[in-house]
Amino acid sequence: MPIFDLPLELLKDYLPTRDEPADFDAFWRNTLDETRSYPLEVKFEPVDYGLVLQDAFDVTFNGFGGQPIKGWLLLPKQRMGKLPCVVQFIGYGGGRGFPIDWLLWSSVGYAHFIMDSRGQGSGWLTGDTPDLYAGGGNPQTPGSMTNGILDPQHYYYRRVFSDAVRSIEAARSHPAVDPARIAVTGGSQGGGITIAVAGLVPDLAVAMPDVPFLCHYRRATELVNTYPYKEIVDYCHAHRNKVDAVFHTLSYFDGLNFSARASAKALFSVALMDEICPPSTVFAAYNNWKAEKEIRIYSYNGHEGGSSYQGIEQIKFLRHLWK
Amino acid sequence: MPIFDLPLELLKDYLPTRDEPADFDAFWRNTLDETRSYPLEVKFEPVDYGLVLQDAFDVTFNGFGGQPIKGWLLLPKQRMGKLPCVVQFIGYGGGRGFPIDWLLWSSVGYAHFIMDSRGQGSGWLTGDTPDLYAGGGNPQTPGSMTNGILDPQHYYYRRVFSDAVRSIEAARSHPAVDPARIAVTGGSQGGGITIAVAGLVPDLAVAMPDVPFLCHYRRATELVNTYPYKEIVDYCHAHRNKVDAVFHTLSYFDGLNFSARASAKALFSVALMDEICPPSTVFAAYNNWKAEKEIRIYSYNGHEGGSSYQGIEQIKFLRHLWK
Amino acid sequence: MPIFDLPLELLKDYLPTRDEPADFDAFWRNTLDETRSYPLEVKFEPVDYGLVLQDAFDVTFNGFGGQPIKGWLLLPKQRMGKLPCVVQFIGYGGGRGFPIDWLLWSSVGYAHFIMDSRGQGSGWLTGDTPDLYAGGGNPQTPGSMTNGILDPQHYYYRRVFSDAVRSIEAARSHPAVDPARIAVTGGSQGGGITIAVAGLVPDLAVAMPDVPFLCHYRRATELVNTYPYKEIVDYCHAHRNKVDAVFHTLSYFDGLNFSARASAKALFSVALMDEICPPSTVFAAYNNWKAEKEIRIYSYNGHEGGSSYQGIEQIKFLRHLWK
Amino acid sequence: MPIFDLPLELLKDYLPTRDEPADFDAFWRNTLDETRSYPLEVKFEPVDYGLVLQDAFDVTFNGFGGQPIKGWLLLPKQRMGKLPCVVQFIGYGGGRGFPIDWLLWSSVGYAHFIMDSRGQGSGWLTGDTPDLYAGGGNPQTPGSMTNGILDPQHYYYRRVFSDAVRSIEAARSHPAVDPARIAVTGGSQGGGITIAVAGLVPDLAVAMPDVPFLCHYRRATELVNTYPYKEIVDYCHAHRNKVDAVFHTLSYFDGLNFSARASAKALFSVALMDEICPPSTVFAAYNNWKAEKEIRIYSYNGHEGGSSYQGIEQIKFLRHLWK
Amino acid sequence: MPIFDLPLELLKDYLPTRDEPADFDAFWRNTLDETRSYPLEVKFEPVDYGLVLQDAFDVTFNGFGGQPIKGWLLLPKQRMGKLPCVVQFIGYGGGRGFPIDWLLWSSVGYAHFIMDSRGQGSGWLTGDTPDLYAGGGNPQTPGSMTNGILDPQHYYYRRVFSDAVRSIEAARSHPAVDPARIAVTGGSQGGGITIAVAGLVPDLAVAMPDVPFLCHYRRATELVNTYPYKEIVDYCHAHRNKVDAVFHTLSYFDGLNFSARASAKALFSVALMDEICPPSTVFAAYNNWKAEKEIRIYSYNGHEGGSSYQGIEQIKFLRHLWK
Amino acid sequence: MPIFDLPLELLKDYLPTRDEPADFDAFWRNTLDETRSYPLEVKFEPVDYGLVLQDAFDVTFNGFGGQPIKGWLLLPKQRMGKLPCVVQFIGYGGGRGFPIDWLLWSSVGYAHFIMDSRGQGSGWLTGDTPDLYAGGGNPQTPGSMTNGILDPQHYYYRRVFSDAVRSIEAARSHPAVDPARIAVTGGSQGGGITIAVAGLVPDLAVAMPDVPFLCHYRRATELVNTYPYKEIVDYCHAHRNKVDAVFHTLSYFDGLNFSARASAKALFSVALMDEICPPSTVFAAYNNWKAEKEIRIYSYNGHEGGSSYQGIEQIKFLRHLWK
Repeated sequence: MPIFDLPLELLKDYLPTRDEPADFDAFWRNTLDETRSYPLEVKFEPVDYGLVLQDAFDVTFNGFGGQPIKGWLLLPKQRMGKLPCVVQFIGYGGGRGFPIDWLLWSSVGYAHFIMDSRGQGSGWLTGDTPDLYAGGGNPQTPGSMTNGILDPQHYYYRRVFSDAVRSIEAARSHPAVDPARIAVTGGSQGGGITIAVAGLVPDLAVAMPDVPFLCHYRRATELVNTYPYKEIVDYCHAHRNKVDAVFHTLSYFDGLNFSARASAKALFSVALMDEICPPSTVFAAYNNWKAEKEIRIYSYNGHEGGSSYQGIEQIKFLRHLWK
Repeated sequence: MPIFDLPLELLKDYLPTRDEPADFDAFWRNTLDETRSYPLEVKFEPVDYGLVLQDAFDVTFNGFGGQPIKGWLLLPKQRMGKLPCVVQFIGYGGGRGFPIDWLLWSSVGYAHFIMDSRGQGSGWLTGDTPDLYAGGGNPQTPGSMTNGILDPQHYYYRRVFSDAVRSIEAARSHPAVDPARIAVTGGSQGGGITIAVAGLVPDLAVAMPDVPFLCHYRRATELVNTYPYKEIVDYCHAHRNKVDAVFHTLSYFDGLNFSARASAKALFSVALMDEICPPSTVFAAYNNWKAEKEIRIYSYNGHEGGSSYQGIEQIKFLRHLWK
Repeated sequence: MPIFDLPLELLKDYLPTRDEPADFDAFWRNTLDETRSYPLEVKFEPVDYGLVLQDAFDVTFNGFGGQPIKGWLLLPKQRMGKLPCVVQFIGYGGGRGFPIDWLLWSSVGYAHFIMDSRGQGSGWLTGDTPDLYAGGGNPQTPGSMTNGILDPQHYYYRRVFSDAVRSIEAARSHPAVDPARIAVTGGSQGGGITIAVAGLVPDLAVAMPDVPFLCHYRRATELVNTYPYKEIVDYCHAHRNKVDAVFHTLSYFDGLNFSARASAKALFSVALMDEICPPSTVFAAYNNWKAEKEIRIYSYNGHEGGSSYQGIEQIKFLRHLWK
Repeated sequence: MPIFDLPLELLKDYLPTRDEPADFDAFWRNTLDETRSYPLEVKFEPVDYGLVLQDAFDVTFNGFGGQPIKGWLLLPKQRMGKLPCVVQFIGYGGGRGFPIDWLLWSSVGYAHFIMDSRGQGSGWLTGDTPDLYAGGGNPQTPGSMTNGILDPQHYYYRRVFSDAVRSIEAARSHPAVDPARIAVTGGSQGGGITIAVAGLVPDLAVAMPDVPFLCHYRRATELVNTYPYKEIVDYCHAHRNKVDAVFHTLSYFDGLNFSARASAKALFSVALMDEICPPSTVFAAYNNWKAEKEIRIYSYNGHEGGSSYQGIEQIKFLRHLWK
Repeated sequence: MPIFDLPLELLKDYLPTRDEPADFDAFWRNTLDETRSYPLEVKFEPVDYGLVLQDAFDVTFNGFGGQPIKGWLLLPKQRMGKLPCVVQFIGYGGGRGFPIDWLLWSSVGYAHFIMDSRGQGSGWLTGDTPDLYAGGGNPQTPGSMTNGILDPQHYYYRRVFSDAVRSIEAARSHPAVDPARIAVTGGSQGGGITIAVAGLVPDLAVAMPDVPFLCHYRRATELVNTYPYKEIVDYCHAHRNKVDAVFHTLSYFDGLNFSARASAKALFSVALMDEICPPSTVFAAYNNWKAEKEIRIYSYNGHEGGSSYQGIEQIKFLRHLWK
Repeated sequence: MPIFDLPLELLKDYLPTRDEPADFDAFWRNTLDETRSYPLEVKFEPVDYGLVLQDAFDVTFNGFGGQPIKGWLLLPKQRMGKLPCVVQFIGYGGGRGFPIDWLLWSSVGYAHFIMDSRGQGSGWLTGDTPDLYAGGGNPQTPGSMTNGILDPQHYYYRRVFSDAVRSIEAARSHPAVDPARIAVTGGSQGGGITIAVAGLVPDLAVAMPDVPFLCHYRRATELVNTYPYKEIVDYCHAHRNKVDAVFHTLSYFDGLNFSARASAKALFSVALMDEICPPSTVFAAYNNWKAEKEIRIYSYNGHEGGSSYQGIEQIKFLRHLWK
């Protein structure tokens, strides 16, 4: 059934009860304190991939646990003053690829910071950042979704979200970047990280999550058969006695809880036939978003969402704000 | 079987007998004469998609039958003198999309001309050029591959290859473009058109076909079950008495015959696990290429081929020639 | 889920709001006037396929735009007086095939007229009628469903439904046929055309649509993942900004609107597990049928519906009327 | 959709109307009388598969129609007094395999009797019992589900359920077995037979059906696309005029009707994502169970259900009763 | 790979060693003697399905074991003298359906006798003949292919081939049929039975097997993954120790051995992309055919083969012989 | 194609060149020295799962890097003297499950030691041993196969094979176990580990690898599309420039190189239709095995191989040696 989730009329008001642990804020305060106890040590090294309209830099900074995280920074070669900066997070399984894969935002005149996802980057775009972490893991299903899932302290996305918060600080540290004009964005997992960062970094200007992942896990696992949410199903399928522990851990990482804390202006997108990140999970995040917000709805699309159509919407959205 | 075609050692020397009709050159001479009997009438209209590093133009020129064909031209906003120009053809089912989909070659400092594929552009990137043609068609299988397939005069690719030849003329007509430094490129169908153009336009500098389609049809239809080659199989499946007519028509459109006429320097790519454009059909074109040539081989890839890895190879290839 | 649509109790009363443009009747009046401005010029040429119980004729008549349309006429060799005539339309992708594919209705003692579907006939039974039409097309998804879909004037089924109306006139023109006893029939697309003809030709005696297609498009595209309805989904998937235009065009071609105008006695069939033409779209047409009607319901069938069981029902239905 | 059936809250109270023929009890009384008119003639022949902790016996007894039925009996080699006995029925398509496939219950200290399923045993575990029956069959779909389905007297499961009742008598006849402490169990088809036996044998102590099959046929055939229930769909699909006859026959073999007669203590299991034996059909049987009962619910499992997790539950259940 | 079998050049000479048991002829002589020990008792009862050009009869005759076998006989209502008769056998899973499903050969002027396949007829066309046989079966995989496969005496096709031999006698017994002009035909399983009958009945005039099944079993099971041959694979998969017994039984039923005994004029068909009845197994039968023969080759077809194209070839073939 | 690999005649002599690094022995000597630098510290803690014929122990010992590794030990409760011990390794994705999952070898009278696979055990049987390892990883494809694949020091199987060598020492340390009579076994990954251990532990008595994995990687990745070998393909697919590094690492972990060093008596199994561990990769290991060996061949099986049939072969093999 192409329309397998709620009809649009109900999606627009869909506001399920959030499952939020009492110590959610304390957990993240401690996590970020611990992460920031390591020096950031950003490095921007120029690289030559043949681009003549952009300056491209190989970025390294210290993320969770002080582990070096890779990224790219692209700047318009012709620039004046400090630039707004788009910080981008990557979809599940992808890595930072090459600078030639990320030409949009610099061509539009902004700084563009792309953060590698630790441990990922062997599915499509290649990555350069391993996930160096040994403590307290559990046997897991293949992939990242159940890595450390029995304990919020050890869960994979605790490290990723912390890296992402640090990536904002890394982007802001560059002299060409205007720290007051940061937009975070990304599709799918990148959209989920976008929401998390918006809930964890109080002074972001803009968040643009596309067809975001990492929201409303329980419903997602009961509604769709698709990976990556299905990694959680697979885990619960094998570990029949760990279901409660799994969803307790996930409550610290649910986009709904981050949305409820966000203060950035938001431009969401959702696709009504998206079987990877079903529309009710996206609307559950959108409807919980605390700040000013808009959403673009794609009626006949799956997880590819708006693609370039949404890119054009995002350009307009930022130009309207920052022109 | 991931390696389903000939082993690499045999591919390197694979040179099957070409099926070339006696009037191949006359057919194409007449076709292009007829096409050129219409005025080219190129128009370049500036468009604003928010790009600040590039000038973007909506292009219209007259192709086969004098029908208007759409395209984009992107130029580095900062430029000096006449630029080399990369003319790009699009993969099967795609259209010209938007200027923001095509930022690579202008970012590298070249003019970039993208030609829309008539009648296509509803599969992934959207197109804006219908295929306005009524005469002499036959009932066909869905898609473009068997459109007019019973008669070379009416075959779909007669129109497309003619459009493509005209697109070179359109690109060369722009004052910012250096007519002596034209590179044609494209992946899959775009690679097949690249080869055709290289066989039809005598003074091209460079051709860079990626995992090209439209080569060695008979072998392809007997070797792979995949679309779009399978459209031909489907047609022969229904029209059991038309098999000879089909392959006679296709002999006028086979990349092998264009390769044997090409004079441009070539950079090919091939993927050894490509089930859409099987490696033997690509090597059959490559091994027939008359001029100087190189090929990049991707051992564990399918039809996605080298993707950005090949992009980097192409950038190096052109910089080496034109630096 | 085998029963994926509404339960039978609700289907029986399912009467959704029809989306009917104000100029529906004018559009079709103009279309048929334009079609009839060309002379019909029916030709019946005897052919020999070895049949000894039937006379078989290769039929040609002028359809939409004056284009020649092919067909077959089969008559019982032993006949007396004017015969009732069954006019048959063909399912999606098929063509008129051969006279030996159509022996039922002449064996039952009726004239049998089979109309080829322009442009189709390369999927299963082969066709002999191209779709000679150039004006105003748009890039489309493979297949017929989105051919000209941005403008009702250019939409593919405008031509087909016009051909079908003319086929009735062609059948009636044969001296062996009793013009007052015409039954139209067909399965799937053939059933959709049957309904359209019943809405456009005021003096038909009988319509027997089997598991009809081309009804209640919007619901179909939201309910099933299957082709051919999915061609429309694919188009809207790519052309995200054309959804309204698409469904506006389709409102001129929706079986529900033709049903509401039909005056022929009807025998429908529907299959409750039909994922190609879902039962609610069939009942939406059936429940809108203005004239006398019956429906046969197949509980455990998909799009094959009743097959020979329904054939037997149809024979009984006609014998009851015309004995 | 992983959760495709009713939500758990509704499942817990799901109690559909049972379709029970008036002569249900008479039918089974006559059937068992007829079966018992043949002498049981149990034979236990020791076999050596290398086991040293168990005594293994090749069992033969006369089932329905007096046909010899095979089985295994495993006893702990070290034993004292009469033992409780677990009688096990096998899932669809499997056979009795080898003694080394059945080591659990003897290792736990019980006698273990495994009954072969006549005619099955070529799918996974191999069987040794043909279904020797000629009278009154009908053309059927491949598999057992529609074997004789037009007449309750000839239906396959009449023979199997009768064999199963006799297998209890066979198990009880062994001197090491305590006839008062019989538990029947099995997964899927084995669970369905377990329920049937519990409804047919008045003095069973325990029944432990796992994810049982053979319950609530009509709903199953309308809810899931999976075999073996789909064999019934396939039959009705072909024989469009036999639907009522099919479900009339099945009403004599529906687990819901046996549940309503059961007096044994029951431990069920159900999996909420089970697409073979959907949870509503299992709860329909469970909620109808007349005697004391418990159920274990597996939220993220399909037809594999609890597997060893359920095995551990069963061991605890029996130890609690029989310690 | 569409062409997965030998290339056509090798197929034309493909003549593998036949696996023929020494007592092949004795086995069949005894089988037919035993079958003929029951009286044939043919009954032809007129039925009314609304046909006016044909006389249709419901046929019953005694086949193997004296069991009644159903069939249809269709005769041109207008006829003179004794007619040639086409005896048709049905593809796997199908049954005799209805007279309206079989109108071709009577429309061409011949008698047409259709034999029901015992036990089949619930897959597509429905059947009316059960397989009443109890003795000596083995647990089998679903379907007919391994029914009794451990012993040639009990193998399913022993019964079917015997029925088929008797069906010739039944056809010849009708006064309208010319016993000297019998053609046997059928597609797939019907083609396999055609070959068997041609090897068992010495005075047949014509055999027209289409894409025949039941030939060269061992190669088929090693070459294709498709049912029905895969039923044999499934059986050997489970019963790992019965592989030799299986193929010994099948050697009595292999089309290659019947071909080598055939004296009728043959018209075969084969499809080079047929994954159900792979072309090498068809050519193995064709190349072994002892008598005069022709074959039609369909290059781009699968198991549907030539369909109506082959029908036209058959009509021409018979008209040439019998005009 | 069911038989997709070499024919059996060629498999029997298939002995491809082994790709063995010069420092293979040094690498493993250093690895085991480093592993043994941690104390073994085996613990056997009795557990009660209701078994009365066996004593079951929860085992913990220190594996690679001194990390605690879990396992089970089952002993016949009735035992005399020191017992032979079967050490079992687990298939890919599985974990040690529960003692009730492993009843075979104790029932046959042997000690049975099951080693958990670090990091695995969320696919089917659940595991209890994480893979606590942080240093030098690389972004990887989901699963274990490319964990650390760019450097033999960091490759996942360096840790697993070291754990497995230590598991032998752990088993031998139990007073009920006869250290001279150790058999190692396992299916698939368990078979691959079996071969590795046989190459690394000089004084093993018996090795019984079933359908072993982890052999002849390059051929496997070019021959089959199936996981887990496909994880390597996926990695090379993304990391196009790392293919040589990948296969260099794998050369330290290839079963062929371990086979060439093995001194234990071996009983292999292979399935000719195994698309997970293709037969040529198994025969490549078998044909390289240095010591006395036998193999059981399953002609019509896939990766399930002989299952209980092979279990029976293994029991006979060990009884013959140790009776």
